[in-house]
Amino acid sequence: MAVITGRGCIAAIGLIVVAFVIGLMIGLFAPERYGPKSDKILRRLTRDADPDVGNRLINGIDPAIIDKHLQFLTSRPHLAGTPGNLRTAEYVRDQWTEQGYDVQMVPYNVLLSYPEENHINTASLVASDGRVMYQTSPGEHALSPEDAHPEAIQPYNAFSPSGNPESELVYANYARDVDFESLIRLGVNVSGKIVIARYGQIFRGNKVNFAYQNGAVGVILFMDPSDYTDGKVTYPDSIWLPPTGVQRGNIVMIKGDQATPGYPATWYTERLTDEELKAKLPKIPCHPIGYADAYMLLKAMEGLAAPPEWQGGLNITYKLGGIMTANTKVKLYVKNKLKTVKIYNVIAKMKGVIESDRVVLIGNHRDAWVFGGVDPSSGSAAILEMSRVYADQFKGGWEPRRSVMFCSWDAEEFGLVGSYEWVEENVMWLRNQAVAYLNIDSTTAGNYTISVAATPTIRRAIFRAAQKVPDSHQAGRTLFDVWRERRPDAAKKEFPSLKMPGAGSDFVPFEEDVAIPTLTADYRNMDLGYRVHKKNAHPLYHTLYGGYRYVKMIDPELRVARTVAALVIETARDLVDSLILPLDVRDYAEAVDGYIQTLFDSGRQKFSSYNITSVAIKSASQNFTNAAKAFHFALDKVDLHNPLEVRAVNEKLQTVEKAFQVHSGLPNRKEYKHVLLSPSSADYYKTTTFPGMADLLYQIGDNATRWREVKTHLSVLTFCIQSAADILTS
Amino acid sequence: MAVITGRGCIAAIGLIVVAFVIGLMIGLFAPERYGPKSDKILRRLTRDADPDVGNRLINGIDPAIIDKHLQFLTSRPHLAGTPGNLRTAEYVRDQWTEQGYDVQMVPYNVLLSYPEENHINTASLVASDGRVMYQTSPGEHALSPEDAHPEAIQPYNAFSPSGNPESELVYANYARDVDFESLIRLGVNVSGKIVIARYGQIFRGNKVNFAYQNGAVGVILFMDPSDYTDGKVTYPDSIWLPPTGVQRGNIVMIKGDQATPGYPATWYTERLTDEELKAKLPKIPCHPIGYADAYMLLKAMEGLAAPPEWQGGLNITYKLGGIMTANTKVKLYVKNKLKTVKIYNVIAKMKGVIESDRVVLIGNHRDAWVFGGVDPSSGSAAILEMSRVYADQFKGGWEPRRSVMFCSWDAEEFGLVGSYEWVEENVMWLRNQAVAYLNIDSTTAGNYTISVAATPTIRRAIFRAAQKVPDSHQAGRTLFDVWRERRPDAAKKEFPSLKMPGAGSDFVPFEEDVAIPTLTADYRNMDLGYRVHKKNAHPLYHTLYGGYRYVKMIDPELRVARTVAALVIETARDLVDSLILPLDVRDYAEAVDGYIQTLFDSGRQKFSSYNITSVAIKSASQNFTNAAKAFHFALDKVDLHNPLEVRAVNEKLQTVEKAFQVHSGLPNRKEYKHVLLSPSSADYYKTTTFPGMADLLYQIGDNATRWREVKTHLSVLTFCIQSAADILTS
Repeated sequence: MAVITGRGCIAAIGLIVVAFVIGLMIGLFAPERYGPKSDKILRRLTRDADPDVGNRLINGIDPAIIDKHLQFLTSRPHLAGTPGNLRTAEYVRDQWTEQGYDVQMVPYNVLLSYPEENHINTASLVASDGRVMYQTSPGEHALSPEDAHPEAIQPYNAFSPSGNPESELVYANYARDVDFESLIRLGVNVSGKIVIARYGQIFRGNKVNFAYQNGAVGVILFMDPSDYTDGKVTYPDSIWLPPTGVQRGNIVMIKGDQATPGYPATWYTERLTDEELKAKLPKIPCHPIGYADAYMLLKAMEGLAAPPEWQGGLNITYKLGGIMTANTKVKLYVKNKLKTVKIYNVIAKMKGVIESDRVVLIGNHRDAWVFGGVDPSSGSAAILEMSRVYADQFKGGWEPRRSVMFCSWDAEEFGLVGSYEWVEENVMWLRNQAVAYLNIDSTTAGNYTISVAATPTIRRAIFRAAQKVPDSHQAGRTLFDVWRERRPDAAKKEFPSLKMPGAGSDFVPFEEDVAIPTLTADYRNMDLGYRVHKKNAHPLYHTLYGGYRYVKMIDPELRVARTVAALVIETARDLVDSLILPLDVRDYAEAVDGYIQTLFDSGRQKFSSYNITSVAIKSASQNFTNAAKAFHFALDKVDLHNPLEVRAVNEKLQTVEKAFQVHSGLPNRKEYKHVLLSPSSADYYKTTTFPGMADLLYQIGDNATRWREVKTHLSVLTFCIQSAADILTS
Repeated sequence: MAVITGRGCIAAIGLIVVAFVIGLMIGLFAPERYGPKSDKILRRLTRDADPDVGNRLINGIDPAIIDKHLQFLTSRPHLAGTPGNLRTAEYVRDQWTEQGYDVQMVPYNVLLSYPEENHINTASLVASDGRVMYQTSPGEHALSPEDAHPEAIQPYNAFSPSGNPESELVYANYARDVDFESLIRLGVNVSGKIVIARYGQIFRGNKVNFAYQNGAVGVILFMDPSDYTDGKVTYPDSIWLPPTGVQRGNIVMIKGDQATPGYPATWYTERLTDEELKAKLPKIPCHPIGYADAYMLLKAMEGLAAPPEWQGGLNITYKLGGIMTANTKVKLYVKNKLKTVKIYNVIAKMKGVIESDRVVLIGNHRDAWVFGGVDPSSGSAAILEMSRVYADQFKGGWEPRRSVMFCSWDAEEFGLVGSYEWVEENVMWLRNQAVAYLNIDSTTAGNYTISVAATPTIRRAIFRAAQKVPDSHQAGRTLFDVWRERRPDAAKKEFPSLKMPGAGSDFVPFEEDVAIPTLTADYRNMDLGYRVHKKNAHPLYHTLYGGYRYVKMIDPELRVARTVAALVIETARDLVDSLILPLDVRDYAEAVDGYIQTLFDSGRQKFSSYNITSVAIKSASQNFTNAAKAFHFALDKVDLHNPLEVRAVNEKLQTVEKAFQVHSGLPNRKEYKHVLLSPSSADYYKTTTFPGMADLLYQIGDNATRWREVKTHLSVLTFCIQSAADILTS
């Protein structure tokens, strides 16, 4: 019999163990057929986000760097189509290139509107013998040395036609539809008159449009001190509007390049003819003035005293006019020209490592009316810092799942021109690849609470991000907590208030043409030190004075800019890197349900007398709610190790928004396609519940044709909501 | 020193080996962290198709089973909206359920058009004293016992308005635009007359439309014996049209349910009003007659002799008319009604195992004018057999990657109603999920060569399939070889001829609204035993006589039906199961390039005098060509073990078609959205090169407005082609 002696035994056991281990190792690290390579691939493809990257992004934002960018960007006027803005484009391009992005300057030849050279737009008070009694200021005086710059453009309203109407003034308050209705009730005829009205409340283009519809031959707009001052110290010693300050701004109702509707303003795109342009552009001249000038014009007005709530902050009784002191009249001298100029978007891309064909876009516009401190350089400076911290994480070894694009848009001030043209050019691949668009604009328009508007699906992601971002001013508290405290949701006090996206900035083409979730974030409300009544609009908006000094008065340490940047970049990271997209369709279903409720609550009686019931749309909405619940319930059961299963649910989350896009457009506004988020036709800045429906119901009376259109549009809405449910269940 | 003796040594070595093997096994089959599970998952997710499944599908098709289905389906008239067609829906549903599919009957309430009950539509020859000299036949006589059925609908043209116009006849040949132009040149005024014209060459709806545009008050259509007989024996003793045979058919220019344009005909969709319907439906009565009746009417006509090429197969001299023998007139008695009826699509789904959210659809319509032997039951029978062999493979363990849907459409004969409504209802998820739509219709309309129309991207897949399918008649040869021999491509003789999809069947909504590749396959040409001149149209088309007997005369052993079924199911398998979608965008780029060449060759002089150049569109086309080449070159380098990389390239292949879809529609036909594949407005059945351009250039002369629209549309086409390139490179 064989024996193994002591040492031999130990050696043998040793060899056995070694053999086992060698076998084990070979087995574990065997070539790919059965082994770790597949595992490594699969784990990489299905890796979830590391939330700690988010903390590093948030903490990485450096206000000092934002300040540096801000100083450069506000050091010279940078109106779209001018060398000053080509310079900012090159700056942004160089920054992004240095940060490591793949950068493109994307030019378009677009039609913008400028005052005629060597001409100053004014309004004059003319005596009955033709003598000019008073002429409005030819521009804004530099009140601080840094505001003096030869390139500062005079105040004007872009896309106002040229013209010299001469007539009596009528005061129309904010020139809203309700204001003109009041004038009719008060017996004041606007026809043939020049309307003078306060800026504010609604988009200025709507004011001009309402004036035109009421027969006015011209419009003068001014910022009333009651809306834009605290009645005491003004700029340069405070943020409040000085008497010479004038808000510029475009007055077009249809956005994007006016000459190439629906298509990109590339070299090969056929432009509209002059006649076609004339037909779509504003019909009557409009000129903006300061409140010092407004005072002089208002003083010359007679007629009924305006209602108490129409009285403003100037030390006179505002009268409705129609007749004027000593038969004087007001004459406008507006000479603008349309000019095709080259604008430049700057686009920086960083490819995702796992799903490079899915892109999260972050953008803000770069062009300004003058120095553009708050609007938009506070945003431009912040986005450059966002991209820096993002790229730093990448360089540090982070492998973001999806791609990101940072976009610097040109010519936003002329009607979202740069973003619209780029979206129009790239819409075909964006429809599949774009996940979400995150916008910032006038980041530091206030310093009290953040103001966020977003598509409902993205809501929870924003709240989650806000819970990670430190508050701008209250140490130890999160942005979420202070936001919820200062601006709680009206219905659900445990959440901060979140608005639906209106239509004032570059997210619009992404909503209308690509139909993806969007958010836009800024600070609007002023803190207690500054706050006057309930006003939100920042007082030096679109004036000469809204430059660097203005930003530093509102946000001296750029804490607000940092906070907005942190919130947006963290939301972006979540969208870029999470295995399952952080979008929640249940919130959309809930929002839709609320809209339906509102619609039928408000119009109940009329609806039933035209046999319009909510049965179908409520049934569709119930289907959407159920589908959304079932979808998220099933999400918990998705095999997270199966990359195709994950991709499929993400595709549905990404696609659901497209159900609300009707390619043939809203009933009377073909250029707007989103049945929920398109701007109101009474106020371009606002989103109405079901905008197509709002259009149709507006002053509908017993117009049978219109009631039929209401029925038709209701069935379109029902179809869209049902389709949202079907996308989830298909 | 330790020693190991002989046996001990062997035992120890044995133990060492065992230990090694155990270690190896543990290593190899270690829990999922490092082990075969990931590998198995990954291999499954990236498994490529087993082409042998295709051979089994092809060989599985059993003509005897097709015959069985055909007999059932043709045993009773099954007009859309009647119990006869609900019966076929239930049959199809039951078959598919039994085969193992998830089946749905999908009803819609749609507006169809039928003759008024208890009324027979006719045309009469009326003497000047009002006496009826001759009245056309009240219907088609049953010439074979199986054709006698009380449910057979009388001949009529669906959607013709009711009316009793009475006037002289004018003979308009095929009632094409060129025919009416000839009449004008020949001095014959159509205004106020009733047009009598031959069926054939173009879609009958276009004939009525041209007649209306030329001022006619009514239309009579007949199938001329020179087009539909060989001049000898007719049905029931041959396939040729007997004197009493009448072609039915709709005459609408816009497809889908007439009452719910753009939206599904569900319970909640608002319908058009009677006035709106009237405005879009045909304006003048139209009635189809047999050539026995046509002879009697033509004989009563006077006026100039028609040109030689207008002379037909009736034994008289065809005259242009305008005046008639002894002041007789012709009076139409057309009484049709619009009726909302319930139609039923049947949809069978089998989920894919790996990417169930990608769907290949295969469909044909089920409704027929009468017994519908060739049109469409030869297709309906074939599709039931295709689904059977497909399900059999599944039951046998095959795991198809993507999902498949078999669709049986209703009311195609009334203007693609069933397919349009279903696509309109499901368009939102179809846009993402649908990969391709494969259509069959009148499978056995001939027996000589196959006729396939397809989107260019799908071309190679079809040829590959045809190389696997045995020819229907020539033993030992493939379908591809015989097809190439009998109908070679005009330019590339090494390939068979493949047409662009026209617009005669249910693939249209998939092209227009979903923008995915489509194919439609059938046999059209007759073999030598039957062939007369170059005619393709099957002679008993839409007549009472086109039933079972007709199919069996053309295709006695159902070899043709089997061949078509085999080709389509194998193409479907390739699309369903291939790891990389078998679509080739290079072929699209080449086709587009050819279109541009054709467009500019044909209009060169005119174009240059209006400063229209091909520079931009050719540059876009070159970009598309380069992008397509680069894309397919890169395809070879795709990591086929990375499921997300594979998915991404497939998404691009699937999406490229959408670049050619313009949501605002063609310049003058908003309901058509595909800038390449939409039907010609001069012939609904045909596809013109750039249909929007063809519309604009039609009789354009020196119309400056129109030339400007040409420029604009040219830039739209340029944008679409560039977008196709961008989808591939983005």
